[in-house]
Amino acid sequence: MEALVAQGANVCPFLRNATPTTLRILASRPSGVRGFSVLQREGLRCPVLGRSIKLQMIHRGYIAPCMTVKMRSSPQFNAAMIQRGYVAPCMNAKMRYSPHINAAATSLESVHLKAKIDSSRGGVCPHMVAVQNAGRAARRGSPTLFPGSISCPINQSAQCPVNRLTPINHSTQSSPFDYDGFYQSELDKKHLDKSYRYFNNINRLAKEFPRAHTRDPLERVDVWSANDYLGMSRHPKVIEAIHATVDKYGAGSGGTRNISGNFQLVELLEASIARLHQKEAALVFSSCYVANDATLSTLGAKMPGCVILSDQLNHASMIQGIRHSGAVKMVFRHNDLCDLEAKLQTIPAGTPKIIAFESVYSMCGSVSDINAVCDLAEKYGALTFLDEVHSVGLYNYDGAGVAAHLDTLSKHSRRRLEAPRGSAAARIDIVSGTLGKAYGNVGGYICGSARLVDCVRSLAPGFIFTTSLPPHVMAGARAAIEHQRTTAHDRIRQQLNVRRLKSQLARLDIPVVPNPSHILPLLVGDAATAKAASDDLLHSHAIYVQGINYPTVPVGHERLRITPSPHHTPEITDKLVHALDLVWKKFNIRRSADWAAIGGRAGVGHGSKEIVPLWTDDMLGIKTCKSDIIDTQLPLHSWVSL
Amino acid sequence: MEALVAQGANVCPFLRNATPTTLRILASRPSGVRGFSVLQREGLRCPVLGRSIKLQMIHRGYIAPCMTVKMRSSPQFNAAMIQRGYVAPCMNAKMRYSPHINAAATSLESVHLKAKIDSSRGGVCPHMVAVQNAGRAARRGSPTLFPGSISCPINQSAQCPVNRLTPINHSTQSSPFDYDGFYQSELDKKHLDKSYRYFNNINRLAKEFPRAHTRDPLERVDVWSANDYLGMSRHPKVIEAIHATVDKYGAGSGGTRNISGNFQLVELLEASIARLHQKEAALVFSSCYVANDATLSTLGAKMPGCVILSDQLNHASMIQGIRHSGAVKMVFRHNDLCDLEAKLQTIPAGTPKIIAFESVYSMCGSVSDINAVCDLAEKYGALTFLDEVHSVGLYNYDGAGVAAHLDTLSKHSRRRLEAPRGSAAARIDIVSGTLGKAYGNVGGYICGSARLVDCVRSLAPGFIFTTSLPPHVMAGARAAIEHQRTTAHDRIRQQLNVRRLKSQLARLDIPVVPNPSHILPLLVGDAATAKAASDDLLHSHAIYVQGINYPTVPVGHERLRITPSPHHTPEITDKLVHALDLVWKKFNIRRSADWAAIGGRAGVGHGSKEIVPLWTDDMLGIKTCKSDIIDTQLPLHSWVSL
Repeated sequence: MEALVAQGANVCPFLRNATPTTLRILASRPSGVRGFSVLQREGLRCPVLGRSIKLQMIHRGYIAPCMTVKMRSSPQFNAAMIQRGYVAPCMNAKMRYSPHINAAATSLESVHLKAKIDSSRGGVCPHMVAVQNAGRAARRGSPTLFPGSISCPINQSAQCPVNRLTPINHSTQSSPFDYDGFYQSELDKKHLDKSYRYFNNINRLAKEFPRAHTRDPLERVDVWSANDYLGMSRHPKVIEAIHATVDKYGAGSGGTRNISGNFQLVELLEASIARLHQKEAALVFSSCYVANDATLSTLGAKMPGCVILSDQLNHASMIQGIRHSGAVKMVFRHNDLCDLEAKLQTIPAGTPKIIAFESVYSMCGSVSDINAVCDLAEKYGALTFLDEVHSVGLYNYDGAGVAAHLDTLSKHSRRRLEAPRGSAAARIDIVSGTLGKAYGNVGGYICGSARLVDCVRSLAPGFIFTTSLPPHVMAGARAAIEHQRTTAHDRIRQQLNVRRLKSQLARLDIPVVPNPSHILPLLVGDAATAKAASDDLLHSHAIYVQGINYPTVPVGHERLRITPSPHHTPEITDKLVHALDLVWKKFNIRRSADWAAIGGRAGVGHGSKEIVPLWTDDMLGIKTCKSDIIDTQLPLHSWVSL
Repeated sequence: MEALVAQGANVCPFLRNATPTTLRILASRPSGVRGFSVLQREGLRCPVLGRSIKLQMIHRGYIAPCMTVKMRSSPQFNAAMIQRGYVAPCMNAKMRYSPHINAAATSLESVHLKAKIDSSRGGVCPHMVAVQNAGRAARRGSPTLFPGSISCPINQSAQCPVNRLTPINHSTQSSPFDYDGFYQSELDKKHLDKSYRYFNNINRLAKEFPRAHTRDPLERVDVWSANDYLGMSRHPKVIEAIHATVDKYGAGSGGTRNISGNFQLVELLEASIARLHQKEAALVFSSCYVANDATLSTLGAKMPGCVILSDQLNHASMIQGIRHSGAVKMVFRHNDLCDLEAKLQTIPAGTPKIIAFESVYSMCGSVSDINAVCDLAEKYGALTFLDEVHSVGLYNYDGAGVAAHLDTLSKHSRRRLEAPRGSAAARIDIVSGTLGKAYGNVGGYICGSARLVDCVRSLAPGFIFTTSLPPHVMAGARAAIEHQRTTAHDRIRQQLNVRRLKSQLARLDIPVVPNPSHILPLLVGDAATAKAASDDLLHSHAIYVQGINYPTVPVGHERLRITPSPHHTPEITDKLVHALDLVWKKFNIRRSADWAAIGGRAGVGHGSKEIVPLWTDDMLGIKTCKSDIIDTQLPLHSWVSL
């Protein structure tokens, strides 16, 4: 063996620099990968040997995520992979332009290919001689030595992707892939980590809002978890607009926007949205999921070298859009402006960049500092993309969302006629919003400059190649927006209900994740308990509150999510509070004091820092009783009905 | 220089094997990349030197698509790239798990970084010494030598991605990115290649189907381009279902399927869809774009090493889904079973694979051989994914689509009670369809085995994280499906109208792309003319027929797309034919004979191969007059109203 090391040292500087003792220790330490020592694993990083070692690992039934990286640069390697039944996502591009791959995969046996790769590389590379000798020695019983780049700092860190090897079962390679087995194993995984979703059957009744019937049409439950935040889905103006439009224009649009699916009502709706957000133009999509996905993926893909900075808690639709764009993604810590700035500083001035964030984060109710993000965006020349999905219709007197709301707050004014230059609303480049939550219908949108909107309209496949929403949906959504622009009554009543419920829960020490918005996340902290609590509320108390588990929230942060509307009366609120108290007792769920005793979690039990609601006392017209139960019958000020 | 070569030959086998003459010739031949010889370019492939040469190229303002490949394996390289303003799509993953990158990019000057990379690599690699010496010699005026892997066969082929270097303008790197300029330049490109879309304002009137009003509510036009193929968007049963449901359940669903957005009507609709296609389960999405995208991207990403075989003419939603999956994509020629089989043969048996195709291709009306594709799928162990978007509601007596229609045809039976084992409908693993075309509403779906559907339901972000469609849309769509299951009247009348129009156009020699379906693509062959013809029909003849240009169809294949419904009367059909004749004359558009004279295009003018319609004479109850005008008042057989 010493002779082998000496021989290797002649050609390999790594081997030369390491002492025999070091090599021996590394070679005898198991790497966690079956049959491979730490030294062999580290050798994966060697520019000369790495590929051969990987091939060996694959032969023994392992494939690493990082292997996809190297593969693209070698058609022989790709061919060998395909031959063995492994294909990497990155092969996609290569396969299109390399006829060699398919030819090789078709005509060569894997063993021949392996031999060919080894001999062709060994024949030209002096390093390979050492490897091959070492390999032969290994087969004779001596420990195999793969002198790797052990000086590489990456290799020794836990970040190394090679450490995450997953075994592939070779025995199945000759028989067809077991699709049913695959589906079942994916479902088993969901059951195992408690992320399998059981859908409740909740039929929300327009005439009995916020009540619904269950699978039994006669059974009633109070709904406390809908995103129909203001009950606009049953507002007479909305219902009437839908009836009239269905009668006049029918049930469907009949085509994409380009092929017979463009009509007056969608243009009017887009004009309403643009006016609401004081932007030049708006564009309606099938949903806000599609709006976020299509817009971010299109801009990120088209702008050369684009970097997208994404808040850690951004919605799945934005995460998907960024992923689909192929742009560089930098995730900054939730609402952490220092981290955002640190990341912005690493990007050159001329590089296009988008800061993607939300105004109200739906699962914790936290609110971003829009002005501060805009300051950074201006300083570093970034576009701002603000998802106002959980705030349009709910903030500012006209329902324009949090950006406009902050402008109103900052002006200490009770009326907002137009966004002043330099306001948060005006500084945001792209706003996305929904017609399916506070506005009670379905669909999503973006708005921004006319050029930007025209660009997305012209380039985004998710917009271009899909049937437009029916005329009556456009009409219903527009009726909701226009109604909510003229009165703040629902928003204020909702906020008063939020305050009432929060103060009632606080008196029972039921833990609400603190936030300044309308969302009440009740911390449970365990997946099974969250589901059991939700089920018990439904079946024993006729109250529907959805439990939220991983992956929507982190493990240990499981919660019940409650969203009071303007129409949740004091009676059903009292009933909810009473039921929650019973459920908390029944399942022995931690109260705020319990969370504080173990150091707090998700903002609960971390101390009593006062959080000022977005809708301040002043905006709501309240002078006192901040911490007491609010009487929702308080006289509403004149601005309530503008 | 000879001394340099000798020095290099000591450490580099490539250099050792090449004669000085060969090296001199390669070193003096320009590579097409400014300032780089063929030898230098070939050196990009050298495992030891490649990265250094690339860095040099980047310094001179060049970046190659293939560079993204290597970058991921080296954090230092990534950092250097970012520092210089270049970012690659593949960096995404790396950046998330490598804190080194940001640290390096933040703290180091690009020059220092370059020096560090060079010296760190040079310090450990004997080859590097030769490179660095050669570099120094180059700076002193001698020609630089980068002894590359000139024996690599890939390097010498036109497939080499390195040959496709594109320059990046360094001068813009210091000022912020010009977002507005970017939007404008993208729009300019669309204007330039005539792919910019001008939306027509078409308001289809439920009570005057197939008429619509334009921007002027009093102006009427005949709509010949809608995908509301049967006029179900204005069917009394659909309208009534919507009215009743809006009154009962309101305008919106109020949440995702998991959070308050799951209700009786969506479950009933899914049961209807599953029954229609004789599958175990179905899943409804916001649109069929989302259904295709979400399903293919989820399966392709989750099944290890999945390969997706995609028909060349597949819809954008499938293309996006495949792209988003990251799976290997193999595109087979349109409806070419030999090509499909050749590609299947290159994939190992154990590798999961999906054949994704359509039954009716919307822009040319061609129809796939579903049974033959299923034969191949079974032979090679592939899943079948069939998009029936342009055929559900339109084929087979019950509207179940082309797969079921073929089963009926093959049975030579006039009634289809259930799909026999081994039928095309039963053999297809995943069917996707739409509620927005023949069924006149909005939304899309997939159906298949219960496990498959549960798997997509549980894993696809595009399904999980989006507000479900409103209850009344579910009710309207279900009413349409159930109505169409009970009568073939509309389908048969539509087919008779299709035959009438085709024969009238044939008599005028107006070129219809031949196909066996209900779609009439009239070949125009030029983007500007197609738009002008469409505009002229609209403004001079009050007829709306959409022109279809690149990228929806290839350049030179531009067309007008006509879709007769059961409700297009002989009167408005005659009016259309007359108007088309005038427009063909006015713009001097080629007739079929003209296309034949220049060798044909898109199937027009390629000879008189008879195409048998999917709805055969027998199925339609016609015994004669195949090539003559069909009287739509023909007595319909008893099975028309099952």
